[in-house]
Amino acid sequence: MTGESKLKETYASSGVQIKKAEAFVERIKSTAKRNQHQQMWRGAGGYASVYGMTEDTAVAVTTDGVGTKLLVAHALGKFDTLGIDLVAMCANDLICVGATPNLFLDYFAVGKLNDKVADDIIAGIVEGCDRAGMILAGGETAEMPGVYEPDHFDLAGFAVGSVSKSSLITGEKIKAGQKVIAVASTGIHSNGLSLARRVLPESQWADILEPTAIYVKPVLQLLNRFAGKITGIVHITGGGWRNLLRLQPSVGFSVTKSLAVPDSLQRIAQSVETAEMYKTFNMGMGLAITVDSDDEAMLEIFKEAGHHAAFAGEVSDRAGVVEISGFDFVLEDKLKD
Amino acid sequence: MTGESKLKETYASSGVQIKKAEAFVERIKSTAKRNQHQQMWRGAGGYASVYGMTEDTAVAVTTDGVGTKLLVAHALGKFDTLGIDLVAMCANDLICVGATPNLFLDYFAVGKLNDKVADDIIAGIVEGCDRAGMILAGGETAEMPGVYEPDHFDLAGFAVGSVSKSSLITGEKIKAGQKVIAVASTGIHSNGLSLARRVLPESQWADILEPTAIYVKPVLQLLNRFAGKITGIVHITGGGWRNLLRLQPSVGFSVTKSLAVPDSLQRIAQSVETAEMYKTFNMGMGLAITVDSDDEAMLEIFKEAGHHAAFAGEVSDRAGVVEISGFDFVLEDKLKD
Repeated sequence: MTGESKLKETYASSGVQIKKAEAFVERIKSTAKRNQHQQMWRGAGGYASVYGMTEDTAVAVTTDGVGTKLLVAHALGKFDTLGIDLVAMCANDLICVGATPNLFLDYFAVGKLNDKVADDIIAGIVEGCDRAGMILAGGETAEMPGVYEPDHFDLAGFAVGSVSKSSLITGEKIKAGQKVIAVASTGIHSNGLSLARRVLPESQWADILEPTAIYVKPVLQLLNRFAGKITGIVHITGGGWRNLLRLQPSVGFSVTKSLAVPDSLQRIAQSVETAEMYKTFNMGMGLAITVDSDDEAMLEIFKEAGHHAAFAGEVSDRAGVVEISGFDFVLEDKLKD
Repeated sequence: MTGESKLKETYASSGVQIKKAEAFVERIKSTAKRNQHQQMWRGAGGYASVYGMTEDTAVAVTTDGVGTKLLVAHALGKFDTLGIDLVAMCANDLICVGATPNLFLDYFAVGKLNDKVADDIIAGIVEGCDRAGMILAGGETAEMPGVYEPDHFDLAGFAVGSVSKSSLITGEKIKAGQKVIAVASTGIHSNGLSLARRVLPESQWADILEPTAIYVKPVLQLLNRFAGKITGIVHITGGGWRNLLRLQPSVGFSVTKSLAVPDSLQRIAQSVETAEMYKTFNMGMGLAITVDSDDEAMLEIFKEAGHHAAFAGEVSDRAGVVEISGFDFVLEDKLKD
């Protein structure tokens, strides 16, 4: 679609009703509230729920899928990286609460089991577990003729981590003036694929299959070396940069220096309004970290692990608003717009 | 099909390749072995994996789905009990290792979100969590146009429990001569639905939607009052009574007194060979417990919780074989036949 005027494609026009899905998540949270329990250090709705097993040690748990990245893999007949995405989506959520990822379980449901596809998917999951330092602790393989077409499948991941009370990161210490570290994404990661598939011709899909970066090892090093300086960790997933607003409602963000936008996202941007891009995709920033420090050594940790990272802006006092230098729009809370 | 000769329907002819699926599970186990870790008290392949968080406290984790019971709910337009099945399949697995179920997470993927269906499913999950004493700690709701048809969906459940080293049940203490307690099922539960759907006319499907029994509360009481006497707990799932052989390869089972077979399974049995029935369905026994005791008070615990239970037979020294009084077939390990 290069050269055409912007199509004003939105995530909604690609068939995903994100507001409806989020209103549903809100209903789940209210339904589940009556089950709240004093051992529940952090309930549903954040990146991971945290449940105290002992006075000082908790498990952090989360679940995720890879969305319609499945359909990209299916179209290209390439299945050996989806498992990396699946682990990444869960492991990167666990580190957002300061947890060390320990265990991974997969749910793999198919119409009819195809050994080659299944082996490729498991190989990807094992590779993802290695990158995240996790044990593949089990899984369920369900063959469901009639639910899925014979050569279609779905994947869900479930991850368990551990965190001590003093290491838990909640975002409550995020304050205006703190710095924001942006860690580079490796591409589209695993969100916004419905829109990407709609606007990119299939000949350009190879790039969007690039697996999601797994940030576990450098983040654990960062937490170890700079304990107390890290106030918030944000995995940029569905909702794009609006994820920055998830942790602390009393602040906003001012991003003054962006990382390079991956080629695949630049191509999508030829058909999609810029504001919609930042509301949907990671735009080059796979992980954001708010820090009470400007120590460049923090960036070195990511560089040594193969991830570009930079100081990209500051926490602002404009509550609930993300401003990005050079653009005249702002981003607000996902449920608002 | 009443009155017709048996159709020799098998699980394979209903489209489910159970041997292939299990061979795949074996491959996952061998792939994951290289990740083994000293904190992993029990690795993948059992009812739940168990990972030590401290010297004495471990998390037990498992994942499961409800299989093609989804299609029964879809055909009948009734969705408020599937969530109970989903929690049951996971919670009943956790208690098999002696764990107390704590947290539940769901993965709910749809083609297009339907508020009424989604609310009914979540209501069932919340009801299941209440019955199992679990907290609904989170979940993922994925809208995936193109993967699922607009009114189709899949559900996966993930559960986390806690268990101390001294309370862990591994089956290694199961010995010939111990008694087997059978706890009644409430119907077909959540396994064998592909075969059931194939042989029963849709007019008889209401019964097979009956939700799976959740055995958590009486089992925790039993473990509390009879600690040391409980040597094995077996959730009868896919593979029917062959599940008895999962815990301890050096023994067999002799079942001399069966519980009543639920009506729905009796109707299926009109079209399916008896041996195949016992290899596929729970045949009235949703849970089996091997005990080093013949104390009738153990049965009372289940009765008070609304579950019929009886001493149904003994552990035998005929390794890898389940004998059932009155039948000339025996059941062997799932991968053998």
